Parts: sequence; C-alpha cells; structure tokens
Amino acid sequence: MRLSIEPTTDPGDYEFVHRIRVRFAETDAMGIVHHSRYLPYLEETRVEFLRRIDRPYDVMRAEGLDFAVLEAFVRYRSPLRFDDVVHVHLRVGSISRTTFQIGYLLTVVDDARPAATAVTVHAAVTSTGRPTRLPAWMLELG
Amino acid sequence: MRLSIEPTTDPGDYEFVHRIRVRFAETDAMGIVHHSRYLPYLEETRVEFLRRIDRPYDVMRAEGLDFAVLEAFVRYRSPLRFDDVVHVHLRVGSISRTTFQIGYLLTVVDDARPAATAVTVHAAVTSTGRPTRLPAWMLELG
Amino acid sequence: MRLSIEPTTDPGDYEFVHRIRVRFAETDAMGIVHHSRYLPYLEETRVEFLRRIDRPYDVMRAEGLDFAVLEAFVRYRSPLRFDDVVHVHLRVGSISRTTFQIGYLLTVVDDARPAATAVTVHAAVTSTGRPTRLPAWMLELG
Amino acid sequence: MRLSIEPTTDPGDYEFVHRIRVRFAETDAMGIVHHSRYLPYLEETRVEFLRRIDRPYDVMRAEGLDFAVLEAFVRYRSPLRFDDVVHVHLRVGSISRTTFQIGYLLTVVDDARPAATAVTVHAAVTSTGRPTRLPAWMLELG
Repeated sequence: MRLSIEPTTDPGDYEFVHRIRVRFAETDAMGIVHHSRYLPYLEETRVEFLRRIDRPYDVMRAEGLDFAVLEAFVRYRSPLRFDDVVHVHLRVGSISRTTFQIGYLLTVVDDARPAATAVTVHAAVTSTGRPTRLPAWMLELG
Repeated sequence: MRLSIEPTTDPGDYEFVHRIRVRFAETDAMGIVHHSRYLPYLEETRVEFLRRIDRPYDVMRAEGLDFAVLEAFVRYRSPLRFDDVVHVHLRVGSISRTTFQIGYLLTVVDDARPAATAVTVHAAVTSTGRPTRLPAWMLELG
Repeated sequence: MRLSIEPTTDPGDYEFVHRIRVRFAETDAMGIVHHSRYLPYLEETRVEFLRRIDRPYDVMRAEGLDFAVLEAFVRYRSPLRFDDVVHVHLRVGSISRTTFQIGYLLTVVDDARPAATAVTVHAAVTSTGRPTRLPAWMLELG
Repeated sequence: MRLSIEPTTDPGDYEFVHRIRVRFAETDAMGIVHHSRYLPYLEETRVEFLRRIDRPYDVMRAEGLDFAVLEAFVRYRSPLRFDDVVHVHLRVGSISRTTFQIGYLLTVVDDARPAATAVTVHAAVTSTGRPTRLPAWMLELG
C-alpha cells in the first residue's frame, strides 16, 4: 500500500472545494448513496481542481499525459442521501517523482457533517499507458 | 423515430436468451433496479448473442467495425429487484443496408413475469465513428 | 408504446433548461458518453425542474408520492464527450389522469449542436408502488 | 483506518472465487475498466460467497440484518479491458465483535495476471442502520 496520508475532518486543512448534488441514480436499495459512487465524486473534484489551477484535464490528455489511478481508499463516516448537497474538499498530499496522493473530505452542506474521507494515489502515464515522470508544475504543488 | 418493431411478451418469439443476476449496486432508493441499468443488460446480451453466432464483438472492434446505438426504447412493465435472476430474450428485428433493430424481452425467472420489453437501433460505424455498410453476415440475419 | 410526443431540436420549444458537465466516469471505451448515462441526466433535470416549480422531489417522496418511469426513449444524434457542458432542455408533454410525458433536448453548449432528444413517460405511484392519480398541480402543467 | 490486512497475489491464499465478465458499459475513455467499477465486482462476489455458505444476503436483509461498508481500499495493478473474464478471489480477514474485513484478489483468467487487490471493512447494522453485533455464524468464519 503506497497511500500514506490520513485525511482530516477539518475543512480548513484543504486547499480546494467542489460542490456536488447527489443524483437519485446514485442511491441504492438501502436508501443511501452506493459506496462505489463516491469515486466519481472524487474524480470530478480532481478535474475541477486541475481546471482551477489552469491545467485542464482535457488539454493534458490531448498533450499525451494522463493520470492513472494506482490506489483508492474511502472511509464512509455517515451516509449520503438523495438530493444532499455535498462539499468535496481536496488537498494535494505527498508527491514523488512519479506518483502523487490526493486527500479528500466530503461534508454535507446542510449540517456540516463529515460524510467521508478518502485518498487516491496517481501516476503520470503517456497516452499508451506507459509510466512517465510527473510534469514540473505538478511537482511544484507538493 | 426509426424504431418500428414492437417486442412481444412471449419468450417463444425470441431466438436467443441470456441470464443475468441483478447486482445490489444496480438498485436505487425505491428498492428496485434503476431504470438506466436496463441498457447495460441489453448490451451484455447483444455481446453474448454475437459471441454465440461466432462474431465476437471484441474481434469486430479489432477489425475496425463498431455498432453505434442510434436509438433505445424501454418499456418497464414490473420492477426488478436485488438478486433477481433475469432472462434477457433477444431477437434481430428489421435490417436495412446501414441500420438494424434488436428487440428484447426481460423475464424474471422465478415467476416467468415479464419485467420489460425494449428495442435498440444500431448503425455500423468505422473505428473513427464514420457510418459504413452493415457486413454481409449481418444482412443475412434479417 | 404510450409515448406519443416527438421532441424537436429547437431549444425555444422547451420551458426549462438544466446545465450538466460530462464526468470522465460516464465515458466508455469508444471515447464517448455511454448511451445508458443519458437517463440519469434526464432524471437530474426532472428533479431540478420540480424544484424550480416549487415541488421538490424529496418533499413529494416524503409525502408518499413518487413518479415511476413507465417508458424511456432516447435518440442519440451526435456523441457527448468528457468535459462537454450540456444543456438539457425539458418540456412537459401530454398529461392524462394517471400518466404524463416529458420531452427533452440535449445540446452541447460550445457549438449549440443537438446531441440527443428523448421522452420519458411517468405514472404517479404511492410509496408502496401502487398507481394513484396525478396531483392537481401536475394536471395544471399540461 | 481500520483496514489492517494486506491481500496477497497468490490465489491459493483465498477460500472462494467468483467469475465475472467485463461489460462494455464498465469501460471508460482510457479504454479500460473505470476504477469505480471494481467495487460492484467485490460486492457481487461477497453476495455469491454468502450464498455459498448458505447465508443468502436477501434472506439476511429480510431478517433485518445488513452489512454496511465502513471502508474500501483498492490497489489497481494492471488494467481490465472489455470482455475480460475475471476471477475475483475472496477471503475473510480479521473479525471483531462488530466489524469484519474481506480481502480480494482479481486475476484475468486468460493470462492469470493479477489485476487488483482490495480490502473492504464492514459492520453489521439493523434495517434502520443502527450498529449491532455480528451474528454467531459470522464470528465463526474468523
């Protein structure tokens, strides 16, 4: 396991936040958001973070750089429900020459309740999927 | 609307059947399978049908032929639930030089209840997405 | 088939519009949005439409009223891709005492290209799934 | 983080195996299975494991017992592609009075390649979502 950061439940520890509203299609027969549906929330937030720092993911992909997911970890703290408005907080964690980690905190806006924390570990790959070094601008985020 | 066939609820009208078991991840907060989840069931059944007639879809795609979805129609007749075993019946409908239609009937195995009927309309496209003529073997299925 | 309306490609024919951005998780190996992923876009737009007319769906559900999906039809006109910003236009179509139809037009904001048209047919049901009459405010939308 | 087991890449270390074939709908624009789609594979395998040991999940749920997901971890080792046949190997890991861990190994059948390892951590909950003790038969699996 490479993931080494432990995301906190304090929104102040995060550098970026993205707002999502839970779709009905994301719920399951327990009446809550299915646990697999959190990963696309994290991904959407990474994409918006890259746009915010002027590194839009579609431009990166057009230039032949992609970020593969090496590992993903989610801790489910309290359920999300249909129509909940969720803040996904993001911070860049530890960065090496070929991989980087992102930490996340999901909070429900209505009651500021921490719903989940998560970590994803990524590697830079070329468009054919071969590992490559992280771009300089990425290293500087660390 | 190109779709012109009206699928029946008689399994005897269909030439192929594929068995699927409902995953928990496919249910929603109404306790039933979400209506969007039927389309992957139909797709999986098309893939198994092509394999059965010795036209595996991955070989077709490697040869530069793909089947785009032009239209999809589903009529939901009675709900599917978690762990239901479902028979997806398939028949090839009307075929023109560039498009073909597939009809489907979903039945729940336990009680032979018709759960849904559906139609998809497809066109042959090249790997870059340009329309092309249907292959000869496809025309012969009509 | 109950669906009887044919949605146009003129945004001026629609009474409501909702903006969606395509997630990477919604694409498939053809590099485009998977055809099953349009149905959650339509559903999210219905939910936002109900909120706009002051009939939030979660309140309706808490009051024991739900809208089951009886039929769904999508015509795929041109592909959606990762990160596309999409306008989902909605209009209420034909309404009977127990069912109503909704028409949709999806356009890509960058080039105003019509990406898809769609129709969904719904029935009012109680929380146990039994058919019931449409509420008066719904009949007045017709 | 409660997860404490590190799943191996040796299929011999696992007590149960379930076969899955990758659906086209599960791929993404990188041409591989989207990383969020592994979690439903793990869930389907848990359901089949419970059926094998005569504790069908739907019976459990009808009796008011459910298994909530507290944590999930996936390590992606090599990509899965459309139509791959995958063996999901499962073993019960550490068990406490209220939680248990499951370890997984995914291998591609064609080349016996390890595709992923994973861990999920679960708690027993009542049908209203309140934590409860694990049933005796579950404790005996440890």
